Amino acid sequence: MPRYLRLMDSLIASGHSRVSSSEIGEKLGFTPSQVRQDFSNFGEFGQQGYGYNVKALREQIAGILGTDRGYKAVLLGVGHIGRALMGNFCFSEWGFNLVHAFDVDSTKIGTEYRGVAISDMKELDSYLQSNPVDVAVLTVPKDVAVEVARHLSTCGVRAIWNFTNVELFEPGTDVIVENMHFSDSLLSLGYFISERQDEEEKQKK
Amino acid sequence: MPRYLRLMDSLIASGHSRVSSSEIGEKLGFTPSQVRQDFSNFGEFGQQGYGYNVKALREQIAGILGTDRGYKAVLLGVGHIGRALMGNFCFSEWGFNLVHAFDVDSTKIGTEYRGVAISDMKELDSYLQSNPVDVAVLTVPKDVAVEVARHLSTCGVRAIWNFTNVELFEPGTDVIVENMHFSDSLLSLGYFISERQDEEEKQKK
Repeated sequence: MPRYLRLMDSLIASGHSRVSSSEIGEKLGFTPSQVRQDFSNFGEFGQQGYGYNVKALREQIAGILGTDRGYKAVLLGVGHIGRALMGNFCFSEWGFNLVHAFDVDSTKIGTEYRGVAISDMKELDSYLQSNPVDVAVLTVPKDVAVEVARHLSTCGVRAIWNFTNVELFEPGTDVIVENMHFSDSLLSLGYFISERQDEEEKQKK
Repeated sequence: MPRYLRLMDSLIASGHSRVSSSEIGEKLGFTPSQVRQDFSNFGEFGQQGYGYNVKALREQIAGILGTDRGYKAVLLGVGHIGRALMGNFCFSEWGFNLVHAFDVDSTKIGTEYRGVAISDMKELDSYLQSNPVDVAVLTVPKDVAVEVARHLSTCGVRAIWNFTNVELFEPGTDVIVENMHFSDSLLSLGYFISERQDEEEKQKK
């Protein structure tokens, strides 16, 4: 679904008003029937033979993904990754509102970065009591990740967007965890390269 | 596979020497038969009833993932994400060697960050000619992402690790692209939250 949304945005940007399931499939590397299957799971979007209205489809997908719900997020740990997200990542485009950041570094506390105030991590609890949020963006150092995550699960935070490369909870916990595991991604890349190399060597023989 | 590797590392760190497919499945939220299936696809690792030898399994998985191949990587764009990767991400742990970084900012060119030299982006071509690399880590700004990626595909780079949130190539291109799409991950998170909310509302009724 996120990839569909991204594609719709680029189609809208390039002035397309209608798109067929085969065009969508071609762009994303899916079969047209996969595309139709995905969309039909979420109700009727298109009409056989006429393709989909790009804008209507975009709205439907955005609705399914909840980008119209205005989820509130706080960011914990204003290091490089934290700053990258605060500075270069457009939360609002994806239906999220980054309302506050927290850190332990006294040189950062009390300052702002790209319009987001940074407070002392010690004030997190009292902040969350008066300003409930849906998501905590976890960009703290590895060695405190589990501890901070456990604490968050007692503060009414519904979900954690985890950038720490640490496995946070056993399955079955109440808090939703979405991991950005850099290492998994790099390992996949390495796997694809080695597969490609093996193929090339086979062909040489 | 990357998740299996991560689990093996944490088992080794906590002093485990053997592990069963049901224990692995429990930790990662898979069924034991899924685990056995995954491993059997890559040859025989374990013995029915005795579980797997953790260290041997770790080596096998690492080998499959190519972490022993010592891939060379350069990083393009020493912004926040670039620095986060250079400073906090251990490439060598995953079988990669980050050998050089490039940027266009004259205040960064000629300096080092965490032991990695930063050169002028203009020198990339001549560098790659004398120092072929496998992977380019793409952490340049969005608006030059496609241009830089196209250029890389003419320089003998086999793979791009893409942090730009831009869709780089049409399917079928020769260069391997592994995307770290932050927005996809956040959208998935939003989707899980909205699903959970819908469930809770249903239960209330």
